Amino acid sequence: MEARVVTSACSFNPDKMAKNPLFESPHMFFDVYCLKPGQAQKVHVHYGSDKVYYVLSGSGHFTIGDQEATYGPGTAVMARSGQPHGIRNDGPDDLMALVVMAPKP
Amino acid sequence: MEARVVTSACSFNPDKMAKNPLFESPHMFFDVYCLKPGQAQKVHVHYGSDKVYYVLSGSGHFTIGDQEATYGPGTAVMARSGQPHGIRNDGPDDLMALVVMAPKP
Repeated sequence: MEARVVTSACSFNPDKMAKNPLFESPHMFFDVYCLKPGQAQKVHVHYGSDKVYYVLSGSGHFTIGDQEATYGPGTAVMARSGQPHGIRNDGPDDLMALVVMAPKP
Repeated sequence: MEARVVTSACSFNPDKMAKNPLFESPHMFFDVYCLKPGQAQKVHVHYGSDKVYYVLSGSGHFTIGDQEATYGPGTAVMARSGQPHGIRNDGPDDLMALVVMAPKP
């Protein structure tokens, strides 16, 4: 069975945000993003793919389209195809977030 | 911004497992499944779509293909296109799991 303990798969990189793959298929990727305080994935856009974030721990400052908001553990955020999106760790603690994108761009 | 507090979206049904939609698009659905003790989604199969479960709380007994295993919070499980799969709450507590399927069948 393909099973992954998410926190065990989460590694941090002191130099930049780390994307840690959990599962991948032609239909999706399913990652855990690990961000030290101040690290970010800059705002970017995909066409034809949707992305969902789910905050596991820490504080994520999201930009989706022309909106910005900060969410903590337990909140899921959707970025639809064509919507510029990004995430920044704006808190004092490490940030971990599940990220699914479908289809894989 | 499309943001959802997952536990707030989770409702239970005393009669059967509850699927609570969080986000939906042509490329995926992203739900939270809420199962009282003993409730289950029976083993079934999709062709052309993959599904990932992520256990938020409680104890999930998974069947994927010909394998069975029980996982608690923090574990993600993959069911690929064509693999029979199901989940049962085999613990004493409520079970909540994120479920993403791509593409939407």
